[in-house]
Amino acid sequence: MIQIGFDIGGTYIKAGVVDDQYNILTENARPFPRGENHKVVLDVMKDMASELLSLGKFKYEDVSSIGVAVPGTLDARNETVLHAYNLGFHHLPLKALLEEKFPGIPVSLANDANAAALGELYKGAFVGCKTAVLFTLGTGVGGGLILGGKLFNGGMGHGVELGHVRLIHDGPLCTCGNRGCIETVCSAKFFENQGLEAKEVIDKAKAGDKRALEIFNEYLGYLSDAIVSVSMLLDPEVIALGGGISQAGDFLFDPLRELVKEKSFFKFPHKTVPTELGNKAGFIGAAILGNEKNN
Amino acid sequence: MIQIGFDIGGTYIKAGVVDDQYNILTENARPFPRGENHKVVLDVMKDMASELLSLGKFKYEDVSSIGVAVPGTLDARNETVLHAYNLGFHHLPLKALLEEKFPGIPVSLANDANAAALGELYKGAFVGCKTAVLFTLGTGVGGGLILGGKLFNGGMGHGVELGHVRLIHDGPLCTCGNRGCIETVCSAKFFENQGLEAKEVIDKAKAGDKRALEIFNEYLGYLSDAIVSVSMLLDPEVIALGGGISQAGDFLFDPLRELVKEKSFFKFPHKTVPTELGNKAGFIGAAILGNEKNN
Repeated sequence: MIQIGFDIGGTYIKAGVVDDQYNILTENARPFPRGENHKVVLDVMKDMASELLSLGKFKYEDVSSIGVAVPGTLDARNETVLHAYNLGFHHLPLKALLEEKFPGIPVSLANDANAAALGELYKGAFVGCKTAVLFTLGTGVGGGLILGGKLFNGGMGHGVELGHVRLIHDGPLCTCGNRGCIETVCSAKFFENQGLEAKEVIDKAKAGDKRALEIFNEYLGYLSDAIVSVSMLLDPEVIALGGGISQAGDFLFDPLRELVKEKSFFKFPHKTVPTELGNKAGFIGAAILGNEKNN
Repeated sequence: MIQIGFDIGGTYIKAGVVDDQYNILTENARPFPRGENHKVVLDVMKDMASELLSLGKFKYEDVSSIGVAVPGTLDARNETVLHAYNLGFHHLPLKALLEEKFPGIPVSLANDANAAALGELYKGAFVGCKTAVLFTLGTGVGGGLILGGKLFNGGMGHGVELGHVRLIHDGPLCTCGNRGCIETVCSAKFFENQGLEAKEVIDKAKAGDKRALEIFNEYLGYLSDAIVSVSMLLDPEVIALGGGISQAGDFLFDPLRELVKEKSFFKFPHKTVPTELGNKAGFIGAAILGNEKNN
């Protein structure tokens, strides 16, 4: 049997077919149909699935489950998308709609950072871990927790809002209405709030530009604080960083590890590493959802 | 069979005998022999145990295990006290020493906040919880986590350092060498740093003193930030507050719950409550240690 995983992003929908060992057999991607009704999104997904199956010479009867990663908040039963602002999905019963679209195939949903953490647990940076934390450093800050060797979706199923853990008392205003959330200073917003683009700052800093280096170092100060906080609380084996900003590579990770070590007076055992599956983590993790009863 | 639990504090050693349902049968307390060698402490503990047994007409043969809560850091195997500054214990193999002192009885150690969380899980505010967080607001800030319905001692067994989660970037200097840890603004230190005593400020604030109210409200601002942070990450069913400052009662809890609600834009499901076992949580939790294999 095979599984299909989708990762619905505000820019692209990515998808793939995996085998029972969660190896990718075929994959594809399409632009997210921005501004269209959710029915158009469902049509695109059906079309992508059919293409994936025909690429791999599979039939729908071979598909044991479909999993979908969504950048937003789900209800506690993981059946309805409560809010996915980038997709324009609000109170959308996506599981039921997809099960109508794909008759006879069970569909599972997950928050995209949760799906990515699950992907990393089975095939990436978290293999063998009991306790691990994923930070996705992009437009916002997403987070996925592995606890007890399993995906943790919040104690009451409300999800994990790593980006909205407080880092700065009375800090910058966050989209959530609060101040000083990790997201305000560890995502691309930190650069945007200064009228800059993350990639531009990082490129200039790499080239030795003094002002860009100052800004980048300030960013590292906040990010290391966030990592130390989570490490103090959970004592994880691995903290993995994904998302656009993490693509700065060693230029980010080398000084970051030094700062984390410096600030970890009581202990410094965990490893801070890049994610291994990159932007495939979401659909791989989604494909795993159907086979795993997490939480 | 019965179990004995000890809670070694820098001021008092508290102890109790519990039955298999962890009900207290007898209890006692002695001043901690400050400045004395650890051998004196062991003698006091032996003496307390003998007194407890004679009070309840028990024999040492009835004791199935002894548990000890220690205000400090233990090694990952929970056998050696690495540092308990208030006790003057450093790299002390307390488990082995106590098993010599109490021949034939297995001894378990735990950090005091962990023991208290375990006590609350079995007999107090966390009964029936899968995910819960204990804050002890005293000289410092201690923390105990219940995850998956069990005591969590850190992903790699290094313990949970809730007091050293960052709350304020470049905030007040902490004893750990870092800045802005929760402990710097949510413990008695917040008041001490202003040359005041927590109890005095709270009493004056209750009496309507304007300056004391301002200080107390500032404290509530930090404490609510800390609670919201942990809630965003773990989505616990219950957050319980213990320790001296929590004894301010409704004067603390009523405005605190309002602030937490206000700051929890995305969700506000958990309950913020006082601990139920008060200063007995430590020895009750310690007594439970021997029967439970946590982590």
